[in-house]
Amino acid sequence: MNLDLVNTFAAVNYPSSLIEEAVNELSKFPGVGKKSALRMVLFLLKQTPSDARKLGEAVINMREKINYCKRCYNVSDYDLCNICANPKRNLQTICVVEDLRDVIAIENTNQHNGMYHVLGGVISPMNGIGPDELKIDELVMRVKAEEISEVIMALSPTPEGDTTIYYLSKKMAGLDVKISTISRGIAIGGELEYADEITLGRSIVTRIPYQM
Amino acid sequence: MNLDLVNTFAAVNYPSSLIEEAVNELSKFPGVGKKSALRMVLFLLKQTPSDARKLGEAVINMREKINYCKRCYNVSDYDLCNICANPKRNLQTICVVEDLRDVIAIENTNQHNGMYHVLGGVISPMNGIGPDELKIDELVMRVKAEEISEVIMALSPTPEGDTTIYYLSKKMAGLDVKISTISRGIAIGGELEYADEITLGRSIVTRIPYQM
Repeated sequence: MNLDLVNTFAAVNYPSSLIEEAVNELSKFPGVGKKSALRMVLFLLKQTPSDARKLGEAVINMREKINYCKRCYNVSDYDLCNICANPKRNLQTICVVEDLRDVIAIENTNQHNGMYHVLGGVISPMNGIGPDELKIDELVMRVKAEEISEVIMALSPTPEGDTTIYYLSKKMAGLDVKISTISRGIAIGGELEYADEITLGRSIVTRIPYQM
Repeated sequence: MNLDLVNTFAAVNYPSSLIEEAVNELSKFPGVGKKSALRMVLFLLKQTPSDARKLGEAVINMREKINYCKRCYNVSDYDLCNICANPKRNLQTICVVEDLRDVIAIENTNQHNGMYHVLGGVISPMNGIGPDELKIDELVMRVKAEEISEVIMALSPTPEGDTTIYYLSKKMAGLDVKISTISRGIAIGGELEYADEITLGRSIVTRIPYQM
């Protein structure tokens, strides 16, 4: 067997510096490697130059012109986002989330009619993210200033999420506000045998009364 | 069970038109859905505006300034690509490929020292790609003009690839040139039990003499 044939780890020489540059930039996206980036480049080469320009400019405009809601720090086209500006929402309840995706996911459930507060991440010393990088002081100030009755912690049930919830609840310890977290347990429609042991175990410890 | 909770197919309302535009554009990439595109957007929001601009401009520049080799139609920064301009390559052998990725893959094997000819696709009536969309006439003209001794068909062993090879060989039927295809069979290092039946069956029919 000719071992030269099994040469999968060779450095790639791109035939054009423009291609190389585009592959390098696109492969910075999370989950996109050099091969996927090259596939994207080939897709772009089949589009018209004006279509490719539209894509490139959408990326540039989005980052340069993006605006954040002055109250909840969600992305927004205006100074107040659609949710904060909506007079029908419950102003006394704040749902604390990590980022934009969580706002979209929770809005899609139609189960939360209150406000949001977008932290911009969770405390993660491993990734160099401390409390000062997040909108934590802003949350505490909102709770003090806006007569908030409940803060719902809707952070991922990971060590980082739990640490952040702990830190936030310490920060708000003296304030007259109810703090809750979204319930954790077996996913609805999920099968018990596929649930992980920790979730299953805690779902027994934190069992709830059955309601007909 | 509250069925409102199982609301996974709801249309997404993005909180900003800039985000929506970027998600729509990025989700045009093959294999990228709205969720992956939103993940890319969140990644971009964590980058500096100048990093996002670098990415956007790499895409725009690549598509607008891309140049193709006048001889083999591979992408190239110059009128002749590095391979066509290399005097050490064998000018009499042309390897016919679908696109840029195949050139990169074959170059990485170090097993082909000849020229290339990039068709730009394969004949695919289902996708509206006929022979006129591909660099087929250009290949026939090259074979006539450049004293080519062998044309190696390195197209994917799919119905479209096979159709294209058949069409090309008909087109070159009267010319004094040897036509070959890359060998098909069981992948080196692959296990027989996982090979599909058609490949395995044909690898027996097209068996080759054993060489010590």
